[in-house]
Amino acid sequence: MSNADATIESLADMDAPDPAAPIDASDDRQREIDDLKDKHLRLAAEYDNFRRRAAKERQEAGWRAQGELVRGLIDAIDDITRFAHVDPATVDSKTVVDGVLLVEKKLFKSLAGHGFEVLDPTGQAFDPNLHEAVSTQPAPLPEEDGMVAVCFQSGYVINGLVLRPARVIVKQWTGA
Amino acid sequence: MSNADATIESLADMDAPDPAAPIDASDDRQREIDDLKDKHLRLAAEYDNFRRRAAKERQEAGWRAQGELVRGLIDAIDDITRFAHVDPATVDSKTVVDGVLLVEKKLFKSLAGHGFEVLDPTGQAFDPNLHEAVSTQPAPLPEEDGMVAVCFQSGYVINGLVLRPARVIVKQWTGA
Repeated sequence: MSNADATIESLADMDAPDPAAPIDASDDRQREIDDLKDKHLRLAAEYDNFRRRAAKERQEAGWRAQGELVRGLIDAIDDITRFAHVDPATVDSKTVVDGVLLVEKKLFKSLAGHGFEVLDPTGQAFDPNLHEAVSTQPAPLPEEDGMVAVCFQSGYVINGLVLRPARVIVKQWTGA
Repeated sequence: MSNADATIESLADMDAPDPAAPIDASDDRQREIDDLKDKHLRLAAEYDNFRRRAAKERQEAGWRAQGELVRGLIDAIDDITRFAHVDPATVDSKTVVDGVLLVEKKLFKSLAGHGFEVLDPTGQAFDPNLHEAVSTQPAPLPEEDGMVAVCFQSGYVINGLVLRPARVIVKQWTGA
């Protein structure tokens, strides 16, 4: 028997001064209490570690998601870099404009893969969650009341998050 | 006393058939064991909930991070849309190219705010983690061995993640 065991033994003896008491049952319970406390402490420590890791992982998930998104833009970025550095004396306007149109398509297609949408609500019902009314104009018919007449700046939405509302003119029925 | 309390009382009585046993101490310990088990179960349930929520939050953190990044690109996207739809018959090549150059600057500036870097390692030491050697050329001096001679495609890095290595020609010293 080691010295440590001997010490534990003598401490256990001190806990049971009454010889009539059910020493074994009492010891079992004390052991169970110790085990439970130990188990609880370990779980609490694990939970704490997880919490700390979770905060770090949220941050990393953000970076990773941004990396994935930008990876999809590389092709468009390359094209922009190319057209930004052509010589306007040798490349005509139509070629550059066609190039930029292609960049626009690539950009929107790639971003669409991440839940990005361009809002042009012309002819649709005005939605204050997605559109900003900058002005109104009379509606020729009562059923056109609240419809978007003109969208003069597109809105942008990504994954349900409005990055910018569409700026619109809304038709208003003012009575016959 | 409620019925439930009466039941618990009678169950406790059944646990202590020996009148000489220290009933109060035993009851206290049983109560402590029950409390500890209860506490442990509650912590385990809380931990479990947290874990479930953490997975969801990682996903949301990714979307939020992407939203923030794209929000910063709106200005550049607007410009691209504008230049993609000008009439090349009335807008000259230089105006469009200057516009695209401005877009490039806005784009890189905004992305730089999210840890994005353009790699052009011309004249630097070749780094296999960031560069891809597509060819070699003789180094005129031994100390230029392993230096990048030409970078013919920029690399892109975001937050330490290589989106694309820079494609380069490396100088190689082959002996005098």
